[in-house]
Amino acid sequence: MRELVVLGTASQVPTRTRNHNGYFLRWDGEGFLFDPGEGTQRQLLLAGIAASDITRICVTHFHGDHCFGLPGVLSRIVLDGAAHPVHCHYPESGRDLFARLRWLRSDAAARFLREEPASGARALLASEPFGTFSAVRLDHGVEAYGYRLDEPPGRRMLPDRLAALGVSGPAVGALQRAGRLEVGARTATLDEVSVERPGLAVAFVMDTRLCDGVYALAAGADLLIIESTFLEADAALAAEFGHLTAGQAAQVAAESGVRTLVLTHFSQRYQDPAEFEREARVHFGGELYVAQDLDRIPVPKHLV
Amino acid sequence: MRELVVLGTASQVPTRTRNHNGYFLRWDGEGFLFDPGEGTQRQLLLAGIAASDITRICVTHFHGDHCFGLPGVLSRIVLDGAAHPVHCHYPESGRDLFARLRWLRSDAAARFLREEPASGARALLASEPFGTFSAVRLDHGVEAYGYRLDEPPGRRMLPDRLAALGVSGPAVGALQRAGRLEVGARTATLDEVSVERPGLAVAFVMDTRLCDGVYALAAGADLLIIESTFLEADAALAAEFGHLTAGQAAQVAAESGVRTLVLTHFSQRYQDPAEFEREARVHFGGELYVAQDLDRIPVPKHLV
Repeated sequence: MRELVVLGTASQVPTRTRNHNGYFLRWDGEGFLFDPGEGTQRQLLLAGIAASDITRICVTHFHGDHCFGLPGVLSRIVLDGAAHPVHCHYPESGRDLFARLRWLRSDAAARFLREEPASGARALLASEPFGTFSAVRLDHGVEAYGYRLDEPPGRRMLPDRLAALGVSGPAVGALQRAGRLEVGARTATLDEVSVERPGLAVAFVMDTRLCDGVYALAAGADLLIIESTFLEADAALAAEFGHLTAGQAAQVAAESGVRTLVLTHFSQRYQDPAEFEREARVHFGGELYVAQDLDRIPVPKHLV
Repeated sequence: MRELVVLGTASQVPTRTRNHNGYFLRWDGEGFLFDPGEGTQRQLLLAGIAASDITRICVTHFHGDHCFGLPGVLSRIVLDGAAHPVHCHYPESGRDLFARLRWLRSDAAARFLREEPASGARALLASEPFGTFSAVRLDHGVEAYGYRLDEPPGRRMLPDRLAALGVSGPAVGALQRAGRLEVGARTATLDEVSVERPGLAVAFVMDTRLCDGVYALAAGADLLIIESTFLEADAALAAEFGHLTAGQAAQVAAESGVRTLVLTHFSQRYQDPAEFEREARVHFGGELYVAQDLDRIPVPKHLV
């Protein structure tokens, strides 16, 4: 199962309806927790997500609204008895800050925690069967990274070709796994019964002003989760404090060929989420979500 | 204005209806924040309490459910620009842990933070016009303290005596402040127009097994906020993990002459708060609250 569960959508301070940041991306057997702000432990509960579902925790930067939920989440993982490693990604320069928030006995930490911080302009953090997972540096005053998941290309089976060759049932799986299959007197190959299916890409862009990193992360993303702290009227504030406006975020999405755009991390100064939608719609025609806490957003399907 | 605002009532893990611990005691111009668990920043917002209302933060011990809200609360105090000192009390042995959770730039910390940890069996933390504030050691495995506020005795004015002497209006205040007042040919003294009024006492007892400290804190308290993590059926668990049952808490209250009893810090294993009330009522006949998040509980009035 794949889905994005929005745990919190506030920026610097929480509001009655918006908890601090937090985003959970369920990706088959993987569970990516991005930017656990204060209260994420309880938001997970409200969303029906077990702490043991988390396999990777990704912190974009160490401002409190993006990491003060770490002690609670990590303690909860230990309490619930994680049976698998939990990889933790964060800016390398924040190693001491992460250590302060880790708050685990060293035996518990050694048992399941894998700290794999990001450094440089771009870092490959994982290359696994589920895909590659990378960090790209952003521009926010303190060192900050966005994250991107790239699913490896797969193949889409063509039912008419399979039927023509008389391959059906469990034989289809065998052909997929082996790449070839004896069918009567001849050998059927995977290539002749399928076409290449590009993998999906999901990008996560938090606090940043517009920079090359934003475009690198968003390029061709099927799903882009991106901060839009401000509206156009406060573009000067956005620039000053290293944030994006809804219009900027939508423009990036449009120029990058993004299919589904999720705006989040809203300043408390705005009351009406429809304003973010209006300003984004000027630029972006695809699927658009102005995130609310506890939203569940489907991951787009493969195009072919 | 005086009131107790309950911010959270869960024990180890939060539930759908119970946030982690947090209690705010408004006491005229003072604001005591006890045990800010994760999410306290948002609970304060939901309760309509400004971070700048906090003048003292009191941590009983450094288990996560009693302190993971510290980084958020302290950052918020700075963000909102506290104009007054904020005294922080916690077990001395947790100085390093407090430092990890403080998460403030040193100039901000120096400007408003006053760390005044508790040590020994009993520590006098403050002696101010509002009263004395003390910590008493409890028994919970890790070092833990309960807290107690003792209002100084005052005097209750007697309207009939004042009337007999012809003292009224602003003259009453003048007599109170100076202790004496010329009335016609004679001098009226405060003693002849008033009686002594004992001060109120408020006690805060968190995670502990039954011990002398619990009784020292509860003795004669007008308001006792006390953990009752377990019900009688799980008394063995309470003893093992250093907690109280509702029955034990109520028995202490009854034996100590407590007027208003607030039970809180409930294990998530119990669904029905009425069970705590039932078990407490076996022992305690006074005003009883089984706390719910965001309850506002009035501080008892002076008896005379």
